[in-house]
Amino acid sequence: MKELEQEILKNGIIINDEIVKIDSFLNHQIDIPLFMKLAKDIREFFKDQIVDKILTIETSGIALAFAVGLEYGVKNFVFAKKNKSAIVGNDNYTSQIFSFTKKSTNTVTVDKKFINKGENILIVDDFLAGGNAGVGLIDICRQAGANVVGFAAAVEKLFQGGREKIEALGVKVYSGAAIKSIENNTIIFG
Amino acid sequence: MKELEQEILKNGIIINDEIVKIDSFLNHQIDIPLFMKLAKDIREFFKDQIVDKILTIETSGIALAFAVGLEYGVKNFVFAKKNKSAIVGNDNYTSQIFSFTKKSTNTVTVDKKFINKGENILIVDDFLAGGNAGVGLIDICRQAGANVVGFAAAVEKLFQGGREKIEALGVKVYSGAAIKSIENNTIIFG
Repeated sequence: MKELEQEILKNGIIINDEIVKIDSFLNHQIDIPLFMKLAKDIREFFKDQIVDKILTIETSGIALAFAVGLEYGVKNFVFAKKNKSAIVGNDNYTSQIFSFTKKSTNTVTVDKKFINKGENILIVDDFLAGGNAGVGLIDICRQAGANVVGFAAAVEKLFQGGREKIEALGVKVYSGAAIKSIENNTIIFG
Repeated sequence: MKELEQEILKNGIIINDEIVKIDSFLNHQIDIPLFMKLAKDIREFFKDQIVDKILTIETSGIALAFAVGLEYGVKNFVFAKKNKSAIVGNDNYTSQIFSFTKKSTNTVTVDKKFINKGENILIVDDFLAGGNAGVGLIDICRQAGANVVGFAAAVEKLFQGGREKIEALGVKVYSGAAIKSIENNTIIFG
């Protein structure tokens, strides 16, 4: 989405060749009209699909999940919770997610009441990088017997292999802006 | 708000005389239309005030902040971040918040770029209980020289003293549903 790319170029802060900080509109301060446009673009991309519910993961996916849920007119979105401890009850679906950024594994949980067999679930998140969060959320949906309609991220880093991992599971991927590389303090979109 | 009270009675799970779990529509699964109605009710309550920006705290305040921001038609909302460590740079406003639920103190931070002098800020959160999160966010706004328009919570627990703490700072308080007590497995609204 052109407008998102322009926003990244204008307000993104390049930390190194792999990381660009986009706190000012994506994950600390949120640009509400931009998120609503992104939600519209996501719906257009998955226009042949039925979507019953949106699933994301705390914290940074929540705002986009709200926007996308509102755009679809669905009643609910669900955010998976991250726990350091592996102690989980029988009432939850769980999956292990390794975070490259934080170099730690989180046990991600969703209450079994909130993902149902046969539901059509669209998964959204702020970033698609290594793809582990997406893989974990797909795992949870499939444990529940739900149908994963697709995976949508605001920003994708094409050089970290996440898209391939998710597509290998048979899930269609959308991203609002796809960063091909960050070189000499310049962001190049793919 | 009648509809929120009914939802709490219908789907809230009473854990003990102080805690009711309302995961199914407030802070794990989110009821999007209910949040939009709540946002409308909040705007009506603060109708004499100008609001430039919404401030909340991760994680559970984010969905309500999005709804309220959309209702007001403002460009941005900001969510404060919680850090276990007290290491913070000069680029952030910080405040210490003690959580009764978790029995620990968090350093809450907001990037100085995102709260500006003279801005009219409405603070929102999912719960108002002991009031410490609200007090911390008001502290951050005042460090920045911003004007706190009010504090709005989806659900208030009247018996934990939060409202008094926030009103003592001269800030007007809204709650969508105010629980007076939980007795003999029954929720009584105030």
